[in-house]
Amino acid sequence: MKTYRDIFRWGDPAHDEVLDTHIIKLLKEYLNLGEQDISEKYLTGSDPVQLKKKCRLSASFLNSLIKIAGEKNVAIEDTERASHAYGKSCHDILRLKLGIINNPPDAVVYPRNENDIVKILQLCRKNKTAVTPFGGHSSVTGGVETPRGGISLDLTRHMNKVIEVNETNSSATIQPGIYGPALEKDLNEYGKGYTCGHFPQSFEYSTLGGWIAARSAGQASTGYGKIEDIVLSLRMVTPSGIIQTKAFPRAAMGPDLNQILIGSEGTYGIITEACIKIRKNMPENTRMISFLFKDFESGLKTMKEVMQGRFGFPFVFRLTDPEETDISFKLKGMNNTLADRFLKMLGYKSPGRCLFLATVEGDKSYVNSIVKNIKKTAAKNRSLGLGAGPVRKWFKQRYSSAYLRDPLMDIGLITDTLETAVTWENLPALWYAVREYIKKRPDSICMSHISHAYENGANLYFTFISPVKKGKEINDYKKFQKGIIDTIVKNKGSISHHHGIGKDFAPWMENLIEPPGMGIMRSVKEYLDPGDILNPGGTLGLKK
Amino acid sequence: MKTYRDIFRWGDPAHDEVLDTHIIKLLKEYLNLGEQDISEKYLTGSDPVQLKKKCRLSASFLNSLIKIAGEKNVAIEDTERASHAYGKSCHDILRLKLGIINNPPDAVVYPRNENDIVKILQLCRKNKTAVTPFGGHSSVTGGVETPRGGISLDLTRHMNKVIEVNETNSSATIQPGIYGPALEKDLNEYGKGYTCGHFPQSFEYSTLGGWIAARSAGQASTGYGKIEDIVLSLRMVTPSGIIQTKAFPRAAMGPDLNQILIGSEGTYGIITEACIKIRKNMPENTRMISFLFKDFESGLKTMKEVMQGRFGFPFVFRLTDPEETDISFKLKGMNNTLADRFLKMLGYKSPGRCLFLATVEGDKSYVNSIVKNIKKTAAKNRSLGLGAGPVRKWFKQRYSSAYLRDPLMDIGLITDTLETAVTWENLPALWYAVREYIKKRPDSICMSHISHAYENGANLYFTFISPVKKGKEINDYKKFQKGIIDTIVKNKGSISHHHGIGKDFAPWMENLIEPPGMGIMRSVKEYLDPGDILNPGGTLGLKK
Repeated sequence: MKTYRDIFRWGDPAHDEVLDTHIIKLLKEYLNLGEQDISEKYLTGSDPVQLKKKCRLSASFLNSLIKIAGEKNVAIEDTERASHAYGKSCHDILRLKLGIINNPPDAVVYPRNENDIVKILQLCRKNKTAVTPFGGHSSVTGGVETPRGGISLDLTRHMNKVIEVNETNSSATIQPGIYGPALEKDLNEYGKGYTCGHFPQSFEYSTLGGWIAARSAGQASTGYGKIEDIVLSLRMVTPSGIIQTKAFPRAAMGPDLNQILIGSEGTYGIITEACIKIRKNMPENTRMISFLFKDFESGLKTMKEVMQGRFGFPFVFRLTDPEETDISFKLKGMNNTLADRFLKMLGYKSPGRCLFLATVEGDKSYVNSIVKNIKKTAAKNRSLGLGAGPVRKWFKQRYSSAYLRDPLMDIGLITDTLETAVTWENLPALWYAVREYIKKRPDSICMSHISHAYENGANLYFTFISPVKKGKEINDYKKFQKGIIDTIVKNKGSISHHHGIGKDFAPWMENLIEPPGMGIMRSVKEYLDPGDILNPGGTLGLKK
Repeated sequence: MKTYRDIFRWGDPAHDEVLDTHIIKLLKEYLNLGEQDISEKYLTGSDPVQLKKKCRLSASFLNSLIKIAGEKNVAIEDTERASHAYGKSCHDILRLKLGIINNPPDAVVYPRNENDIVKILQLCRKNKTAVTPFGGHSSVTGGVETPRGGISLDLTRHMNKVIEVNETNSSATIQPGIYGPALEKDLNEYGKGYTCGHFPQSFEYSTLGGWIAARSAGQASTGYGKIEDIVLSLRMVTPSGIIQTKAFPRAAMGPDLNQILIGSEGTYGIITEACIKIRKNMPENTRMISFLFKDFESGLKTMKEVMQGRFGFPFVFRLTDPEETDISFKLKGMNNTLADRFLKMLGYKSPGRCLFLATVEGDKSYVNSIVKNIKKTAAKNRSLGLGAGPVRKWFKQRYSSAYLRDPLMDIGLITDTLETAVTWENLPALWYAVREYIKKRPDSICMSHISHAYENGANLYFTFISPVKKGKEINDYKKFQKGIIDTIVKNKGSISHHHGIGKDFAPWMENLIEPPGMGIMRSVKEYLDPGDILNPGGTLGLKK
């Protein structure tokens, strides 16, 4: 029998959930936790799932669904519905730990093909039943939540194939429900070997459709581009018909329809195919370099100069701030080692020093030329080269830090992330203000890094950890999170750089996009989904 | 007094309009023209402009306009109205030569600032008067034509300033009515020296606002990106309010509003400001290389391999097909010179051989690395390196070939261009089919080149010259042009890569974008401009 824990647990069930001695030491130091705080499991969510709300769909409606998609592909069991009620935000996990699932979908449907989806939308439109697309289960924005119940349309079971690879056009046509690893494997193994180049931290548990719906970024997107740069065309089923955009390399034919549909988070239609750019896979040429800077400012300056240097872009490109750098040293057990003492002697002291990672991919000569220029720029800003080692280490655990959250939350620690994009000019003040806000909360960790850089600015990714107010978990978390987002917006950051908006961040949209901008989005919504059946209940702030 | 010729004449009035001996020889050879055909001027448009349709705006309406924008900035004289009736398409020129201006704007208004525009739109909405924005006068799509008359809103007189350059963010905020040379000069001279990197062939007589409205591409856009890659944010006055998008380096906040407004060709609103990316200007590092290929296929293969090679992109990147190469040799008087005979001896025969030009810009090491790889790729495909000379020659006349059209049309030759974007896979068949169609017309020249390349395909730019059927000029031209566009669309090309759609290409939109896509564009139109006053009469196929 499935427990609440089974639903919120991140990733591979075989992965262990233990906090190692370095982390425990760190938590004691940073958050003043005692031995008991750390050993006592809190809200483990180990009860079996049981929903109060039963499926409210009529027998005839369910029969119609079954007629469309087949009996095996329509599920109304509690565990299935519960597994599709939330994504993986801190709010989601807290609710699951508390056994709160107020608005599960009434049914989960696994469409076999586009035709099933067309029919399901027709049926649901007639019956005013909500339809919310569901991919890899990793939304952290309330994106897949179903406040009006209805159908959760899970695309991962059947619609998960690479349809065509076109080596001449360097493109591939793919179904939306494919997971990152399967997509990457298929492309790697095709013909001369290709890559999609899209590696979000949720890579193992997210899908192409989800990436497109939420305007995702991968860890190497400074080089490959965000998903909106990778998509060439889309196919989308909407209540007003099927949209098939054309995979022209470019065009001047009015507004860019792809860029209207990308980021629409299931509110405009269900993505059934995407034609994406693929690139020759050349892992043998990838070079990894890393540096230590004396302070965040020097690291930032280097990043900006690299991005504006007109010598090409790196692929992975990360700068961790002093607190994140300090913690990462400690977690690796490097604090006060001989190497660490040597670094300190050289002036790379903690707190202050910042770790900077880069990879460059592509043709060998190109890679070498960019690496040389990054090194030159870093040297100018008083850095110490650390070689490929730290990057290699980062690669090894790049998807696994997500596994840390569950054991942290098990001992009553809010563990969450928020991210934004901001111009170079506004970045330092935003970083400072958000840190100040988070650190005002007693016993809190605030780590920040930049993981995506542009000529005109960068993203900032904040990870915060802090003991939750027991008994008032959700209010405590929501209030804290609201304060952080308010601070980001006040300091001229975007609400999101790559997580998307979902229902949780929607309240900030109207203010930031302003009425005529929101009006544009709403007029498209009204046209494509006049019955408001697609991911309703507040997504993107389009409707209540 | 202004003549029709003054209106249609391209560019600098001081520029001479003579066909040199090379061209005359070529026309005789290709088009079977006799001495008389070439000496006889035909439809020179030298009559003074006189409009049959007088301004239909009421005195009180005109007074209101004057109250808003000032007396000097409201014009109803025939010559002003006639100068804003058309762009510079072949169709426009033919009509002006024939003295046909059926639907001039009723008045030309030169707004001084955004506030003027807000008030003008309010007034026009109340009075159901059409408003069509006007920039550099170089539209070739019927984009600025005013089938319903109304106001031509000329942004070039006052709203033509660089408002702010932000060196930290590598961006600049600029008004829409600025011409290419002024914009580039201001950026070149600011601080450390910057460039916009956008050089359409109409550079001297086109504006930033026009580039954005029509999704323009510059000659170096393979490196700098098209205008939609350069714009960071926009400010637009619409009948439903002012839209100010945010200049975040990127965001995941629903549909990309910039990409809805870019390409809207004056139908959604009037652009009043744009924040664009700027790049460090490093002309001293630019390298120019050129090659000759034995056939078009080898050139195409090289282009594709360069774009997919993962070693960075060139900036200017051009491949001329056999006929365009042949003609360009002849126009330069190089045919049968010693050098030419040597080339032929080496196997680079005409017709067949194709000229290939590239420039690479940026940091020195980056430039060298890309140049090396382009050379390597070209060598693999049996090319002959011709050095920087041909590129330098091309640079010298890169804006001046537009001046050739008027004297050609003066001797009764239709001279026009059409362009498309197409995937690598579909490019050869499209090229072949369009050439076949054009060459079916007796006595016609069809030159083609690629001037913008992508990983997934390229544009194709066709220039055709052919004697017009005298007495049936417009029908003859329209029928011929329609056949070419039909052939492009049938062969899976876009209707435009960078000229835009305007009113002339709108009839093909519905079929290509299909109903739900057009419905999206129309729903945005309906929301932003419910009274249908903005560039009405068919632009983009949004409305009749």
